[in-house]
Amino acid sequence: MTLLYKADPERGKQWAQLFAHKAPEIDFRLWPDTGDLAAVRYLAAWQPPEDPARTLPNLEVIFSVGAGIDQFDLSGVPEHVAVVRMIEPGIVEGMVEYVTQAVLTIHRDLFEYAGQQRQRVWRALPVRAAASRRVGVLGLGMLGGAVLERLHLFGFACAGWSRSPRTLPGVECYAGAQALDAFLARTDILICLLPLTEATRGLLDAALFAKLPPGASFINVGRGPQLDQQALIDALDSGHLRHAILDVADPEPLPPEHAFWTHPCVRLTPHIASATRPETAVDVVLDNIRRHRAGMPMLGLIDRTRGY
Amino acid sequence: MTLLYKADPERGKQWAQLFAHKAPEIDFRLWPDTGDLAAVRYLAAWQPPEDPARTLPNLEVIFSVGAGIDQFDLSGVPEHVAVVRMIEPGIVEGMVEYVTQAVLTIHRDLFEYAGQQRQRVWRALPVRAAASRRVGVLGLGMLGGAVLERLHLFGFACAGWSRSPRTLPGVECYAGAQALDAFLARTDILICLLPLTEATRGLLDAALFAKLPPGASFINVGRGPQLDQQALIDALDSGHLRHAILDVADPEPLPPEHAFWTHPCVRLTPHIASATRPETAVDVVLDNIRRHRAGMPMLGLIDRTRGY
Repeated sequence: MTLLYKADPERGKQWAQLFAHKAPEIDFRLWPDTGDLAAVRYLAAWQPPEDPARTLPNLEVIFSVGAGIDQFDLSGVPEHVAVVRMIEPGIVEGMVEYVTQAVLTIHRDLFEYAGQQRQRVWRALPVRAAASRRVGVLGLGMLGGAVLERLHLFGFACAGWSRSPRTLPGVECYAGAQALDAFLARTDILICLLPLTEATRGLLDAALFAKLPPGASFINVGRGPQLDQQALIDALDSGHLRHAILDVADPEPLPPEHAFWTHPCVRLTPHIASATRPETAVDVVLDNIRRHRAGMPMLGLIDRTRGY
Repeated sequence: MTLLYKADPERGKQWAQLFAHKAPEIDFRLWPDTGDLAAVRYLAAWQPPEDPARTLPNLEVIFSVGAGIDQFDLSGVPEHVAVVRMIEPGIVEGMVEYVTQAVLTIHRDLFEYAGQQRQRVWRALPVRAAASRRVGVLGLGMLGGAVLERLHLFGFACAGWSRSPRTLPGVECYAGAQALDAFLARTDILICLLPLTEATRGLLDAALFAKLPPGASFINVGRGPQLDQQALIDALDSGHLRHAILDVADPEPLPPEHAFWTHPCVRLTPHIASATRPETAVDVVLDNIRRHRAGMPMLGLIDRTRGY
């Protein structure tokens, strides 16, 4: 039984050691040392190789090494190949950390205080209680739910929006296209944690930002192509939006000439909010391989018609 | 029965409204409109007036409007006057927010990413799990305990140090001068939440910083005079310490020429981590006035020999 790993080579070395230790019966191969490609049943990848139907004729499962699978071009992947996204505790922990830090940065005026430090100004700004700060998360999957659970603990007024109805303790839940405007109108800090699909591509545009209350801020930890980047710059420049904290961009890496790098209201990080950790990711993949061989459902299996 | 308020006048107006609404039987006076000073039994203040024994001859209780009482010169306050510090939920909430944001800023390399943004560099840095990041809090009072409880939820390796032994769930507790070195040696992010007393003045000096592991960082949300400011700059410049997040300084406001304002490894905010909120503070003071009149112990009563 052969698994081919095709993603970041540094992490791949850690995967190789972990597989050797935990599952020596699996023939682990690190791209580009593939050996006989016809032997490969499992692929763990950020991007599958070109024309997978031909190059990996006996492939049964593709494991994404990321939380999403939007980076995959699934058109070349035969229908019978299962596609599984990564659901592992390291991704959740990293996302909760990043978003909590981002929300508190906005809530506690740390953009403004950084500006005051540059000007050597010692002046306290008015304080606002967390209970009066309305946080809203777009996307109530595993990550959105975990983020809201933590923010709720800080006392923020928490809401979430998803395509289909959800119930989360302490969170005002909105569902469906017809509820989106009401969700936006009550949101001071908007956090995007949606998967990238045809329905969410370009969703964050001028019309959406106009529905947020004046002075709202925006955190993107979803995917770059969900955002109309010029619309965000316009909304910040007009003063309608106050701050943006962006961990994703389009394209990535963002070219050095892009306006986000130097915009005073933008904090930009290089897609680091949350990353798969080899120690925990390998356990998840091994568990799913066992499930697959036993004919049990794998955790994180993608519905290829929905795209998530 | 008369209470005199002598602190920030903007908040004082809110106190006046709240007293009028909640305790109309109390004669509330806003400094400098004191009326007959001999009528004043209660003083709510950041600083008492000069020579309180003479100016307020019938004073029974001083309520500090801050979490500490180190700003008071108690030498002029007669022994029979009770001194009470502010224990109210707004102070705790603000401190937990500020310290969580500061710890996550260091943990998630946001100083480094801000530097990369200025240089337009898109590059991910190695990720470290919270469980391998050792956080340590100096001072295990109400604020230290609340901060550690929240940080523990994020999975950080948590420890605390206090003068006398404490037990906190999930926290490795060290106590007494003889345990301080061991506490420092295991601490990657040191947070000072000690009260200012003669024992803690100047405690954070070159010798203490040398006992932290190389690459440690420091967060001061205690009091400015606890820190040898030049020793901190030296420790940062030598590379022994990595970052400092400071909400307090000595003096405050810090003069514009001070090196902290422009040091690339220092984030400075103007003593805003946590502030008394009139809505909740007035309830706490009214409750203590009722306790005092009923002969019951007041919450937050200071032991004037210990100073906290």
